[in-house]
This record gives sequence, structure tokens and C-alpha cells, in this order.
Amino acid sequence: MIKQLTIIGVGLIGGSLARALKRAGAVDEVVGAGRDAQHLQQALSLGVVDRIETDLAVAVQGADIVVVATPVGATETVFRSIAPGLSADTILTDVGSTKASVVAAAQAAFGQLPENFVPAHPIAGTEKSGVEASFAELFEGRRIILTPTENSAPQAITRVRAMWEQTGAKVVETGVEHHDDVLAATSHLPHLLAFSLVDTLAQLDAKQEVFEYAAGGFRDFTRIASSDPEVWHDICLHNSSALLKMLERFEADLDKLRQAITDNDSDYLLQVFRRAKAARDQFCGD
Amino acid sequence: MIKQLTIIGVGLIGGSLARALKRAGAVDEVVGAGRDAQHLQQALSLGVVDRIETDLAVAVQGADIVVVATPVGATETVFRSIAPGLSADTILTDVGSTKASVVAAAQAAFGQLPENFVPAHPIAGTEKSGVEASFAELFEGRRIILTPTENSAPQAITRVRAMWEQTGAKVVETGVEHHDDVLAATSHLPHLLAFSLVDTLAQLDAKQEVFEYAAGGFRDFTRIASSDPEVWHDICLHNSSALLKMLERFEADLDKLRQAITDNDSDYLLQVFRRAKAARDQFCGD
Repeated sequence: MIKQLTIIGVGLIGGSLARALKRAGAVDEVVGAGRDAQHLQQALSLGVVDRIETDLAVAVQGADIVVVATPVGATETVFRSIAPGLSADTILTDVGSTKASVVAAAQAAFGQLPENFVPAHPIAGTEKSGVEASFAELFEGRRIILTPTENSAPQAITRVRAMWEQTGAKVVETGVEHHDDVLAATSHLPHLLAFSLVDTLAQLDAKQEVFEYAAGGFRDFTRIASSDPEVWHDICLHNSSALLKMLERFEADLDKLRQAITDNDSDYLLQVFRRAKAARDQFCGD
Repeated sequence: MIKQLTIIGVGLIGGSLARALKRAGAVDEVVGAGRDAQHLQQALSLGVVDRIETDLAVAVQGADIVVVATPVGATETVFRSIAPGLSADTILTDVGSTKASVVAAAQAAFGQLPENFVPAHPIAGTEKSGVEASFAELFEGRRIILTPTENSAPQAITRVRAMWEQTGAKVVETGVEHHDDVLAATSHLPHLLAFSLVDTLAQLDAKQEVFEYAAGGFRDFTRIASSDPEVWHDICLHNSSALLKMLERFEADLDKLRQAITDNDSDYLLQVFRRAKAARDQFCGD
């Protein structure tokens, strides 16, 4: 049982974690913290948190576990703000989509990697954002990736793992760099492509018609372009080296397809499309 | 009322059209035609068509309306095959995703553009294919784009329009070239990008893990990569000039985003992402 859980940044992820743990009866008190009092008040009204606090150092006092759930660009500032309020026993974790940058932020803010610090990333979310979009079932059956540092204490890892298991998620562990490479491929690059395509189309003269004639496939393909621009801006800049590596690979492959279309190279096109369909059908199912 | 409707190519689109018209009581007899007798037999067993025929010239005999619903690469061959069986009264239409190529196929096969020929394209579909995936509601509320040629007779356009309205679709008319430009942007390019991305990821060493860690956003984004490779191969090659034009524009914009990430140009990234989200939220809603 968690006596006091402090969540800094009560949005889609932070709010859903609070709801899931409350539903599971796994937490006594959830403290919602952040800079925006009005936003916190909304979380309180919705019953997502039990108490709110805009002074982050105060918010973490007495907490068993502190979860930083702000956009990753704010992580270092948040770590610096909470440092005075953390006790030696407090477990510290986060939900950031980029892990190397979060580890670097901890190193910078605390001067070392705390034993009780366990970086984490729930592979869950929707294109919606804000506490009003949060729901208790968000993490059910989803993966939570822990990327413990060399300093993370086994009991801290166990606590963070146990917390996430209460949400119905499956918890796995991997290395920081590997996490960032895999997520660049499956999440960061697709978001970049979706934002980029929609923006390209929005610049066309026939913009209105283009979107009117867009069928279901286009809606699915571009849904992630409705995600929070600031969150994804942060992610792209905080995982830039892995993202650029994947982007370059993608652009090289896309160039080959462009050349094949230019050359009317039927075989190449068919080969790529068949391989892609087979891979997606095999791994994604629906 | 359509006395005899002949559908050449009874897959997702052809099959769904047959089902929708039967449900509306708008057709007496549907003849399913194609090369593959086993496939036609399945359509017959499912009750999607009333009679089947592998000789295309025979299949169109006595038809009020003939709908060509094969992949666009087969259109010219099909037109040549049915030519001997068409009467002066038979209305001819198609469902191809590329219209300039279909018009060129008609010109080549018939030596001129027939008065009773009305090119059409239903903006509907799923990533599934085959008659077993067809359903009567596929076209409800969707747009059907007619691109009449300069030879298309008004009464032929009226018949094709009326047929599609019976499926619950909204029928609009536009020019061939404009259709191909708009569809390159909203459909052909997204499919190409989805196939390309999934194939790039499928070549990674961490392939298995990459797909395992892919969340809901990735599934939506890549769903169209499960589409029929042959159909999309045909579309890319038969609308290559419009597609290449859009692809080049997209690649140029993506290069700018890559440069912005390289330069840590926060403002540019945020501006593009915000503009994209605003456009998608405005036009697509969900």
C-alpha cells in the first residue's frame, strides 16, 4: 500500500495513474502538484487527486513515491524544485518517453543518480491530453518499461514495479539507450511523420477539399498528429540522436521507393509492400 | 431499379456495392465476374452475387450497368475483354482510385471514350480485402467522386449517381486531374509512407521488440500498411506523377523538420506541430 503518492503533472498519464491506483485500492492519498493552480483544481474536482499543491518541494514532503509526469522538457527543472523536499526514503520515478535525457536531468539536478530513482515509461497514451482525458483503464495490458540506472536500489525497483502492476500493466526492464532507440522507431518517428504530413497538406491550396476527401485510413494514419504539440516537441528534442538515426534510415528507404516509382519498378514496389503487410499482420494483428 | 448489374472483381468494394444495392432493393440480379472461379464461387455462396461468370464478354451481356472493381492495373485488360459483350445501352463505370489512368485505359481499349462510360471512385475502404470482408454499410455517409469525361452522356452520369446514392453515399463530381492530385495527398502518399515505415522497422535487428513495444498510436498509424499490396502497387504506379509531386513536397518539408531537430530549433518544431494539430482537429474531429 502506498500511503502518499505525489504526482507532479496531473495530465493524461499522471491522472490515469492516480485513477488506476485508487481503483485498485493501492493508495491512501494522492497529492497532485504542478504550476497551474486552476488545472490542479480541476483534477481535485474530478476526484483524481485528494490534495493539491503548487510548491513542488512541499508537495513531495511525506511521499512514499513521487511520480514526475510533466513533459520531458520540464524534468530537470522539476527535479531541482523537489530536491529540498525529498527524504532519503522517498522513491522517485517518472513517465517520460525519453530516458537518456531524464537520467541526464537527474544527474544534473541531484549531482548524482539517487539510489531511490527508477526511470520508467508507460507505453500507453492516446492523442488526447489533460486530466479530463484520463481514465483508470489506460494501462491495462500495456507495457511499462523500467530503465533502472546503475545506482537504482533493488528495493526501489521493486516498489516502482509493484505500483505499475497494480494498474494492470506488464512491467519490463531494459537499458536506457535501447529504450530510446526502440521508442524512436515505434513512437517518435511515427509522430514526427504524422505531424509533418498533416502540416504539408494543410499548406496546399486545396486544403479544405483534401481533408474533406480524406477517408478512414487517413484519419487513423494522422490521429497521432492531434497529440499535444509541446509534449512531442520535447520528446523530439530530447531523443534527437536516436530519432535522427531512425529518420535518416527511413528517408533512405523512402528515397528507394520514390526511385522505384519513378523507374516504374513494379517488382521492387510489390516486394516492399508485401514485406510490410506481412510484418504488420504478424506483429500487430488488427 | 437496376435489372442486371455486372460487377467485375467481387472483392471488398465490388462485394460491398452488391450487398448495399441488394439491401436497398435497388437491383434484381447481380452477376459476379472475374478470372478466379473459386473466388467467384465464394461470392455466390455468401449470397453477394446471384450468378457468376468467368468469361467477361458473356458476363456483361444484358447488363444495365457494368462496374469494373478490379485493381486499377487490370482495367485496360478488362475493358478489352468486355468490349465485345457491351451493348450500346450498357452503362460502364469503375471504382478505381486513380482516374487519369482509367480514362486512358478506356481510350486505349475502346478507341474512344464511350458516351456511357462514367469513371467513379468511392472514398471508402478498409485495410481488409476480399469478398469475405465486404459489408453493405461500407459506403454509408462516404463520398463517391464521379469524374465524367467530356464524352460522358448526362443520362449515364445520372444512372451512376443514382446507383451510388442507393448505398447511402454522397456523390460529388470533380475533374480527373484534380481527383488524382487530391487522392495522392490524402490516400496514396499516406499508404506509401505506412508501407515504407513498417518495412524499415521490419529490417531492424530489434524487429521483434520494436513491434512488441508499439502502442496504440503505432497500430493506428500503420493500419493501412496491412492493405492489399497488389492494389496499392497498382495505384502508386498508375498515379505516379501526382504521387511523386506530393512525395517530393512531403520530403522537402520533412527535411526541414530534420534540420530543425539537428539545430535544436525549438520554435520551428513547435510551430509545425501546432499547425498540424490545429488542422487535423479542425478537419478530422476524432
